[in-house]
Amino acid sequence: LVMVVIDGIGGLPIRGKTELGAAKIPNLDRLASKSICGLIDPISFGITPGSGPSHLALFGYDPLQYEIGRGVMEALGIGLKLTKDDLAVRGNFATIDKEGIIIDRRAGRISTRKNQEICQVLQNEIKEFEGIRISIHPGKEHRFVILFQGKELKDDLTDADPQKDGLKAKGAEAISQEARRTAEIVNGYIRRSTEVLKPFYPANTILLRGFSKIPNIPTMADRFKLRPAAIATYPMYRGLARLVGMEILETGETIQEEVATLKKYFDQYDFFYLHFKKPDMAGEDGDFKAKVKTIEEIDRIFPSILKLKPDVLVITGDHATPSLLKSHSWHPNPILLYSKYIRPDCIRRFTEKHCQKGELGRFPAVDVMPLMLANGLKLKKFGA
Amino acid sequence: LVMVVIDGIGGLPIRGKTELGAAKIPNLDRLASKSICGLIDPISFGITPGSGPSHLALFGYDPLQYEIGRGVMEALGIGLKLTKDDLAVRGNFATIDKEGIIIDRRAGRISTRKNQEICQVLQNEIKEFEGIRISIHPGKEHRFVILFQGKELKDDLTDADPQKDGLKAKGAEAISQEARRTAEIVNGYIRRSTEVLKPFYPANTILLRGFSKIPNIPTMADRFKLRPAAIATYPMYRGLARLVGMEILETGETIQEEVATLKKYFDQYDFFYLHFKKPDMAGEDGDFKAKVKTIEEIDRIFPSILKLKPDVLVITGDHATPSLLKSHSWHPNPILLYSKYIRPDCIRRFTEKHCQKGELGRFPAVDVMPLMLANGLKLKKFGA
Repeated sequence: LVMVVIDGIGGLPIRGKTELGAAKIPNLDRLASKSICGLIDPISFGITPGSGPSHLALFGYDPLQYEIGRGVMEALGIGLKLTKDDLAVRGNFATIDKEGIIIDRRAGRISTRKNQEICQVLQNEIKEFEGIRISIHPGKEHRFVILFQGKELKDDLTDADPQKDGLKAKGAEAISQEARRTAEIVNGYIRRSTEVLKPFYPANTILLRGFSKIPNIPTMADRFKLRPAAIATYPMYRGLARLVGMEILETGETIQEEVATLKKYFDQYDFFYLHFKKPDMAGEDGDFKAKVKTIEEIDRIFPSILKLKPDVLVITGDHATPSLLKSHSWHPNPILLYSKYIRPDCIRRFTEKHCQKGELGRFPAVDVMPLMLANGLKLKKFGA
Repeated sequence: LVMVVIDGIGGLPIRGKTELGAAKIPNLDRLASKSICGLIDPISFGITPGSGPSHLALFGYDPLQYEIGRGVMEALGIGLKLTKDDLAVRGNFATIDKEGIIIDRRAGRISTRKNQEICQVLQNEIKEFEGIRISIHPGKEHRFVILFQGKELKDDLTDADPQKDGLKAKGAEAISQEARRTAEIVNGYIRRSTEVLKPFYPANTILLRGFSKIPNIPTMADRFKLRPAAIATYPMYRGLARLVGMEILETGETIQEEVATLKKYFDQYDFFYLHFKKPDMAGEDGDFKAKVKTIEEIDRIFPSILKLKPDVLVITGDHATPSLLKSHSWHPNPILLYSKYIRPDCIRRFTEKHCQKGELGRFPAVDVMPLMLANGLKLKKFGA
C-alpha cells in the first residue's frame, strides 16, 4: 500500500486552467486511466485545513476528534521528538516597557541569528524549573519553541500573550484545577527569562501561545494492523507520521531520493506514506509556473514507483494551495486509486475537472484509508 | 413501491467488463433510460457487508445502530422464527480429549446426516434446562444452531469457544451482572450435552459462539407507515424481512414464481421487497459466465413487473459479489429508480459504469428508502 501525498496539489484556474490542468503529466494521466478517480475534501465543505488535520484525515483519523495543538505542530515542524509527557508551546521574543506594556510583539523582528544567540543564553541560564526540564529551540526571526518536560504537565492553559501591542504582558492561566501547577511553572519561567533578557532589548521578554501536548492517538499498527513507514523530507511531516506510529525512514532532499528510499525498504513495510512538498511552496509563493513545473517533475517519478508493483497506489493531496490565493484553501483535491480490484472509470487525465467525474465521486479524506485497506484485501466483512 | 434486490449484482471487470457490462439486459437498459440512476454504498467506503447489515440499510435502518448477531443470522438462515425473548447461538460439534483439550474444532467435519442424527439424540435427551426451553437445529457438516427460549435471557456473553485447537474448551462468561444466570444455563447445557455426547466420538462436545437476540428494531409499519411484504426464496432474507415487520408471502423456488406472487398480492400491500439470490451464488463460485446468465434471466422478468404499474420501482443490489473475488466486496452497486416524479438522466445502460454518471450520484444505501417514499408521495414536508 503506497499513499503519495502531493502537498497543495489542488489549485484554481488562471486563464482557464489550474496548475494540474496546465501541467504536462503523461504518467499521472496514464495512471488515472487505469485507476478509479474522485475528489476528496480534507475536512468538509468550505473548511481550509492546516497540515496537521489534513494529514490526520488522510491517515484515517477523524481530524475533529484528534486535535494537534499549535505548540506541538511547531515542535514537529523543527524536528523535535515529543513524548506523551511533554508540553510544547510556540513563542515570540517581544519588547515591553518599564510598566510591562507590550510595545512590539515581535521585538522588531530580530534576525534569526540574533534569535539563536539569545536562545543559547536562555538555555544556559535556565535548564530546569521546579523539577521540570526546559529547552528552548530557535525558529525564524523572533519565533521559537519551548518544551517543558516532566511529569503531570497539563495543556489546558490560556495563552501567555495578549495578542496585541499596547496591552500588558500576562501570564498563562490554568483552565482546570489540575493545570494550576503547570501555570505556575510556566509563569515562573516567564518571569525568570524576562530577568535574563534585560540586556537584550528589544528582545526583553517572551510571549507564549498554543500550549499543547500530543493527542492520545492509537497507532496505525493498532488501528489498521499495518506496519507503516513514512518518507518525507520536511520535519513536520515526519513528525505527523511519527504521531500515528509510522517508522520514519532516512531519506534525502529530492523526490528521486525519496523514491530510492521507497525502493530500498519496499519489502520491509506494508504501508508507505510518501510526501512531496514542493507544489505547496510554489502555491504559497503565488508562483503558478513554478507549481506547474514541480508537478511535472513529480510526474516523472511514477514509472519507477509502478515498477515496484504496489498492490494499492493512491495519489492525492493533503489540501489545495492555489497560486491564485497564495495559501492553503478549502477546495477538494483530485485522487486516484490504482489496484487490481477496481472498475477503471475511463478518466483520462489527472486534473480536478476530470477526477470529479470518476467513480469515487466526492468524499471525505478520512475515507481514503478504509478504501486502501479494502483494496489491499486487509479488511474483514462487517456483519454476517 | 417495489424494491428489487438482486443479490451480489455489482462486480469487477474481467477482460474489461463486469458481469453487468457483459450481460445482454435490454429490459434493464430500457428501464435505466427512463429512470434516475446512481451507485450506492452498502455501509461506507471500503466496507464489505454481510447480508444482514446490507439489507437493514436498504430497508432504511442504520446498520451501525441495529446490529444483528451471528447466532440470529444463522437462525434466520435456517428459517427459524425468533421472538424478542429468544437467545440464538451458532455451534460446532467438536472433539475434546480426556483433559478437555480441543483436538478438532470441527469433529472431523462429520457428515450432515450424522449431524442430524446427533442433534436428534441431544434434542430428545435435553428439552429444557432450569425452565428454559432448548432446541437444537442441525446445519451443514458439523454446524448447528441452538435456541434458548424463556424469560430474561441475555446475550452479553463471551463465546464458549476458544477458537483454536489445542486449547481447553471453555464456558460462556457473563459480560454484565444481568447475564450471569444466562451464562449458568448455557454452561449447564454444555456440560449436560457433553455427557450425552460421550458415545459420539469424534463429536463429543459442542462449541458455541455468537450469542445474540434480535435487535430491538421498529417495524416498517411504525417507521414508514407502510404495509410491507417480502418475496424471497431463501430463509435468511425472509427472516431479515420479518425482523423489520414485513409480511412474508409464500412463493416458489424460481424468479418467475416470485413475480407471480408479486402479481397475486399486488393490491394488498403498498411496499414489496423482492429478492433474487442467484447472481450472488454465481459470484461466490467465481463463475463469471453463470453470473452473467442469471442476470440475463432476471432481466427477462421486468416487463411483467412493469405491467403491474408500480408507482415506484427500485432495482439495485445489497452488495457486490465480483466473480473475481469469489466473495462479497466493498464496491458500490448500481441503482435505478423509476417513478413519475423524476428527471430521467439519459443513462442508457444498467451497469456500474453507466449508473455512476446518473443524477443520484454515489450515496449510502440507507438513503434509498426515503427516496422511494418521497417518490411515492408518502413523505410530509420537513419544517415550515
